[in-house]
Amino acid sequence: MGKTIRVTVWNENRHEKIDKNVAKIYPKGIHGAIADFLSQEPDFEVRTATLDEPEHGLTKEVLDSTDVLIWWGHMAHNEVRDDVVDRVYDRVLNGMGLIVLHSGHFSKIFKKLMGTTCNLKWREAGEKERIWVVEPGHPIAEGLGEYFEIPQTEMYGERFDIPAPDTLVFISWFAGGEVFRSGCCYNRGRGKVFYFRPGHETFPIFYQPEVQRVIKNAVRWAAPVNGPVPTFGNVKPLENI
Amino acid sequence: MGKTIRVTVWNENRHEKIDKNVAKIYPKGIHGAIADFLSQEPDFEVRTATLDEPEHGLTKEVLDSTDVLIWWGHMAHNEVRDDVVDRVYDRVLNGMGLIVLHSGHFSKIFKKLMGTTCNLKWREAGEKERIWVVEPGHPIAEGLGEYFEIPQTEMYGERFDIPAPDTLVFISWFAGGEVFRSGCCYNRGRGKVFYFRPGHETFPIFYQPEVQRVIKNAVRWAAPVNGPVPTFGNVKPLENI
Amino acid sequence: MGKTIRVTVWNENRHEKIDKNVAKIYPKGIHGAIADFLSQEPDFEVRTATLDEPEHGLTKEVLDSTDVLIWWGHMAHNEVRDDVVDRVYDRVLNGMGLIVLHSGHFSKIFKKLMGTTCNLKWREAGEKERIWVVEPGHPIAEGLGEYFEIPQTEMYGERFDIPAPDTLVFISWFAGGEVFRSGCCYNRGRGKVFYFRPGHETFPIFYQPEVQRVIKNAVRWAAPVNGPVPTFGNVKPLENI
Amino acid sequence: MGKTIRVTVWNENRHEKIDKNVAKIYPKGIHGAIADFLSQEPDFEVRTATLDEPEHGLTKEVLDSTDVLIWWGHMAHNEVRDDVVDRVYDRVLNGMGLIVLHSGHFSKIFKKLMGTTCNLKWREAGEKERIWVVEPGHPIAEGLGEYFEIPQTEMYGERFDIPAPDTLVFISWFAGGEVFRSGCCYNRGRGKVFYFRPGHETFPIFYQPEVQRVIKNAVRWAAPVNGPVPTFGNVKPLENI
Repeated sequence: MGKTIRVTVWNENRHEKIDKNVAKIYPKGIHGAIADFLSQEPDFEVRTATLDEPEHGLTKEVLDSTDVLIWWGHMAHNEVRDDVVDRVYDRVLNGMGLIVLHSGHFSKIFKKLMGTTCNLKWREAGEKERIWVVEPGHPIAEGLGEYFEIPQTEMYGERFDIPAPDTLVFISWFAGGEVFRSGCCYNRGRGKVFYFRPGHETFPIFYQPEVQRVIKNAVRWAAPVNGPVPTFGNVKPLENI
Repeated sequence: MGKTIRVTVWNENRHEKIDKNVAKIYPKGIHGAIADFLSQEPDFEVRTATLDEPEHGLTKEVLDSTDVLIWWGHMAHNEVRDDVVDRVYDRVLNGMGLIVLHSGHFSKIFKKLMGTTCNLKWREAGEKERIWVVEPGHPIAEGLGEYFEIPQTEMYGERFDIPAPDTLVFISWFAGGEVFRSGCCYNRGRGKVFYFRPGHETFPIFYQPEVQRVIKNAVRWAAPVNGPVPTFGNVKPLENI
Repeated sequence: MGKTIRVTVWNENRHEKIDKNVAKIYPKGIHGAIADFLSQEPDFEVRTATLDEPEHGLTKEVLDSTDVLIWWGHMAHNEVRDDVVDRVYDRVLNGMGLIVLHSGHFSKIFKKLMGTTCNLKWREAGEKERIWVVEPGHPIAEGLGEYFEIPQTEMYGERFDIPAPDTLVFISWFAGGEVFRSGCCYNRGRGKVFYFRPGHETFPIFYQPEVQRVIKNAVRWAAPVNGPVPTFGNVKPLENI
Repeated sequence: MGKTIRVTVWNENRHEKIDKNVAKIYPKGIHGAIADFLSQEPDFEVRTATLDEPEHGLTKEVLDSTDVLIWWGHMAHNEVRDDVVDRVYDRVLNGMGLIVLHSGHFSKIFKKLMGTTCNLKWREAGEKERIWVVEPGHPIAEGLGEYFEIPQTEMYGERFDIPAPDTLVFISWFAGGEVFRSGCCYNRGRGKVFYFRPGHETFPIFYQPEVQRVIKNAVRWAAPVNGPVPTFGNVKPLENI
């Protein structure tokens, strides 16, 4: 087993408070459900943070001791303070992994890191999704079959307005006629970002073994590497060429 | 209008000879159908070549005077002579554009340039295909809508065993549950390669305006650039650093 | 010749006003020098805009009638109004090409589109730079040799904190021991972005034929494509699958 | 610690036999030197294979029990049997990692996997090389500084005729005026390929700690992932859409 990976699961945690159906599916909140399955991994150290905590639970201390941050948000993206977004952004560029789930595509932090609108098509029809692995040797595909299905989900469709991923791992098929780049890897600064499409609040998607498998794999992939810390600014030339 | 682009349309031309249905759809051969619509472009100079011609119609003279080669093959990939494949390969690396259509994914030349098996899933059920544009600013998407449909086609599904494209322009959705990377751009040597999925012999796909539009765009994108001709081997160091 | 490309050359135009040496090298401003050589192309329609004009010369009308925007800035990045940056950003994502030169790496617009700090190493020692073409088939390399040299320049060195380019066209060598990704292509939204390293204010770099060649090529590469305009939001499923 | 990674170090082992200087630097052969430092890792199980062994030491049994193959060759590329190359190729596409060192750029296996000539410039002048990390968050950069130097080496210069790497980790600077893409990652099939430039036979480069660090990191990065094994060919449609 490798060294411990410190994971913080961040959730907006609003749907759970105001919608009985969501609360029924996720009684501990989406963050609680994610923390539960991640905690089964002996090398993960897991805690949670939510929007309504002071500083959204993402103080400097918390971020400095986080190796991988998982992000779920939907209805309250605009309530996330810009200074906290900047703090997360700096940590990602300095090596912290970031996993953005589902409706997090429209979070301030994801848009800031992508440099694009991150807009997409959507439909809430509870239709079937088939997620195909297109890069079977990628560590995020470990333990999966050639595809897995989500029986009922909200559809997300192309055009997904993102930069082309550094590595595209999954493409989704939807019963209603759309496709979607569902698993997208990015290097940004010294950090890694993974966007994973599944995860609606009104379907029990985070209880699905394949979805859990992907998120666990992504945590390991996104964990910081002890690589060089670049220096910037004025430098002297090489002596003794 | 830009300068003239010299296009050679290569076709195996076997299905047309032995299958009445194919001959009915493509009375002039698939190469004839493609040459017909390309010839409508005033800046294209179009000719054809087929397997059963001497040297498959791809003599040194023909290739040296070809800017973009279009390739359709299916049942007779193995009959293509290795020395002709090597000749095409050298020309691509030296700047000639190559557009590989549909079942050409299994041609010797495409496999040699990709370095992988180029294998895939398939199904002949005449099902519907929806081709989504995922890179709307790419020149190969010029003049298209967000997607276009092929009413009845053979399905090709992932995993498509290719290197990740330098640019992925199209993703296909199929009614039966598959997705496919349908428009793949590659730089190889000084040349450009475009793989385009549509184009079965038993459906009139090459008469469809969107398909014609894509192939015309691809010819322009793949046309040679008058860039540097790299030199290789032993070199002297820079003087006067 | 293709259709007319409308180019707007934007310059901060401050060094030219306060530094006699810069004013001597670029008596019409850096924007004037760039506009001069671009205007030699019969298919380019060229105008300029500068920081001290109302709205920095980048009104909605100007941007709406600009196909490719060229950006040079250095000492006054922070004086560029955020609403103007947002306006440029929206236009790029909607198809306008953007060419960012040299110290523009630290402009608000480039950092916003990249999603990273865009920081780097630098040294003002008037040393030699050799710019190597690593993608000789790319349209931006048209008309160049295998490399070209800038006799005296400011050095920019890696680590350059950018996302890996969609296509890397040039790598620079510097006499003092550094390398740099000097020609970087990005697709962002429906638009294209090209970063080109050369271009210091105290050296006559924009008069160099190879530098002019690259910028002309980049204008043609970055010009908008009449591709699909994606729609976003709620959509209906496909009927008649 | 992770699970055991079975490494096979393949070496042509000819220079060592015919050149006293090489034999003096690498008394156990280049393969022996590489095996020695890899064996220090408790989770690596290391063996060697050389050209003059039956089947070049790369029998089906050996390859089937190899997770990562390291390849060094130079003067005898053409003596490597095509059937053995095909066997290695199949294993890479089915998941075995491959690390190609220095002059291995011209090996049959590397050229077959790349689909290009893999040609380059070179100079034997014992000049200084500076290898810059351009992707500091990549696992192959673990434990390195911003750059490291090789005091005396053969130069390799661009244009390096390879497909653009999926991830570019290192760029080399050479005293004589060249640059080179020195650390190139590729996904091919289910396998991973890493090309690493350093490693000439007449300099003691494989004893250098940074070079050893990179090769160890690359072994871990290239080790197989237990991902899906794609199936190919005729498939049935999804039922119960």
